[in-house]
Amino acid sequence: MATRWGICSAGKISHDFTVALKTLPAEDHQVVAVAARKLEDAQEFARKHNISKAYGSYEELARDPDVDVVYVGVVHPCHLNACKLFTNAKKNVLCEKPLAMNAKEVKEILDSAKKNNVFLMEAAWTRFFPASVQIRNLLAQEYIGDVKMVRADYGVPRSDQKDLGGGALLDLGIFCLQFISMVYNGEKPESIQASGICLETGVNKTLAVILKYSKNRMAMFTCFTGVQLHNDAIIVGTKGKIQVPSPMWCPTSLVVNKKETQYPVPEPSLPLNFTNSTGKRYEAEEVRQCLLKGLKESPVMPHADSLLLAEMDDEIRRQVGVVYSQDCQ
Amino acid sequence: MATRWGICSAGKISHDFTVALKTLPAEDHQVVAVAARKLEDAQEFARKHNISKAYGSYEELARDPDVDVVYVGVVHPCHLNACKLFTNAKKNVLCEKPLAMNAKEVKEILDSAKKNNVFLMEAAWTRFFPASVQIRNLLAQEYIGDVKMVRADYGVPRSDQKDLGGGALLDLGIFCLQFISMVYNGEKPESIQASGICLETGVNKTLAVILKYSKNRMAMFTCFTGVQLHNDAIIVGTKGKIQVPSPMWCPTSLVVNKKETQYPVPEPSLPLNFTNSTGKRYEAEEVRQCLLKGLKESPVMPHADSLLLAEMDDEIRRQVGVVYSQDCQ
Repeated sequence: MATRWGICSAGKISHDFTVALKTLPAEDHQVVAVAARKLEDAQEFARKHNISKAYGSYEELARDPDVDVVYVGVVHPCHLNACKLFTNAKKNVLCEKPLAMNAKEVKEILDSAKKNNVFLMEAAWTRFFPASVQIRNLLAQEYIGDVKMVRADYGVPRSDQKDLGGGALLDLGIFCLQFISMVYNGEKPESIQASGICLETGVNKTLAVILKYSKNRMAMFTCFTGVQLHNDAIIVGTKGKIQVPSPMWCPTSLVVNKKETQYPVPEPSLPLNFTNSTGKRYEAEEVRQCLLKGLKESPVMPHADSLLLAEMDDEIRRQVGVVYSQDCQ
Repeated sequence: MATRWGICSAGKISHDFTVALKTLPAEDHQVVAVAARKLEDAQEFARKHNISKAYGSYEELARDPDVDVVYVGVVHPCHLNACKLFTNAKKNVLCEKPLAMNAKEVKEILDSAKKNNVFLMEAAWTRFFPASVQIRNLLAQEYIGDVKMVRADYGVPRSDQKDLGGGALLDLGIFCLQFISMVYNGEKPESIQASGICLETGVNKTLAVILKYSKNRMAMFTCFTGVQLHNDAIIVGTKGKIQVPSPMWCPTSLVVNKKETQYPVPEPSLPLNFTNSTGKRYEAEEVRQCLLKGLKESPVMPHADSLLLAEMDDEIRRQVGVVYSQDCQ
């Protein structure tokens, strides 16, 4: 039986996610409804993607009995309300990253999912790419020995709007942080040191962070809204190196001790808004597999990881002086 | 007339420097004497390199009237005494990096050079490679727009012995720091944040540093004694990128907006101890040109830069808790 998806928000990322679903077998994944704040937007999206039901409110989607799981593609300041709406309606949820604006909100979302006994996952899509699966395999085999250092960069032109949760950390840093956290198995760092440059809008344009882990292991990352960084990542071990060439947030190649392997994503059936978006198919398939097994969280991107990422975010923002209105509530 | 060199210490780096001098015209550079703490070592070095005079003490070298400039290749805890010995004997000096163990010692060396009116330069050889000259040209032309970020890595198996001034910062970090400082034109950073892992020997095995400069510019670097890092550097500007592939500390290629150019160093006449050591010819020629012009410091590696590097080193060591015996005097 197909996993029946509802799409919350008819924006750019929802478009890409829906295109990605179409690269998977129709007997496995089906989009049954889409909801937007304006009915016309939902209807246009439904027409474009051949979806039978279009709603002008998220509440209607939450009430739709045909929906197994909702993909939440709204801007991140709206994640909290959207996630709670769907979990309270007993819907499973895949919510775009970052899961929420701070750790307090993340806890509220996770609690709501647990209370309602539904599946919930932060859409850390990078983790489900074949290249990322291969990284975890290599690390488990200690192929590069003991990992000593992880480094990641992500800098692209991106929104600096504070009310949209913009800035280098939530939009870009999350990709670096989730990568580092994956390599170090969701371990909490012993120390975090962050330095950044804030804009007049109150968000950070530049961010550099050093993380110290147990057993003499370290990590560092750099984010920039505005300039194009190298956008790669590297894992350095005592016996070798794994490089993730750009785009490290949606990787299609891996260089292991200088040997490169390609992991191409499928061609899209419609033009995409973002790089390699058909790679969202891997996280969608993870959701399906978890639902088939009756899991309430993904072992690859568990709730504890989402909470840890949010806690690290909070600490980094405290150090660089970025405060969102959500932090004051 | 040839610049007449005296070599202080018959160790590995002095060997490489002497081989590098031989790649330059003999009418420009001549090695007239070598000194070691043991006469036999100096004699063996002299035989191997065809040097007419060998001394069993540095004092004899300092008194030799045929020596125009002394290359100081002793371990860095001995730089202070060696440099003062030669400057007080009115010899010009090229001293290996780091110039000394801390800023206090560096000041003492610089003061001694000024007082005796001799030329003195820290052997920041990287700056004189053709690839580095090209970097400075490109930056002066604003070829990659406004520089926003500089990143460098340097990690190799290296001494952790505290009494030799070992550890990630003085041995390796100096290469990253001098690179960053070159790009930012010897400007003092607004803030320094360092994180590192100390060994039981009291030196740091791992080091990660974030530097914040004026006008929203940043830099970061990582050092490791023990694991092989990427050992490259990158300069990110608003209009493009300059990459310095490994080995960034003695670069023979440059990638400017993805276009690579090679800058090979000459073949050595004898086996070398360290990578690309014939590239020491460029700093030697800088010394000659400065002496011919009657300069007391190099405009490319001025005294102010040596002092700033030492001050940054001191601050970084303060933050990561590395204290050398020299700091307590």
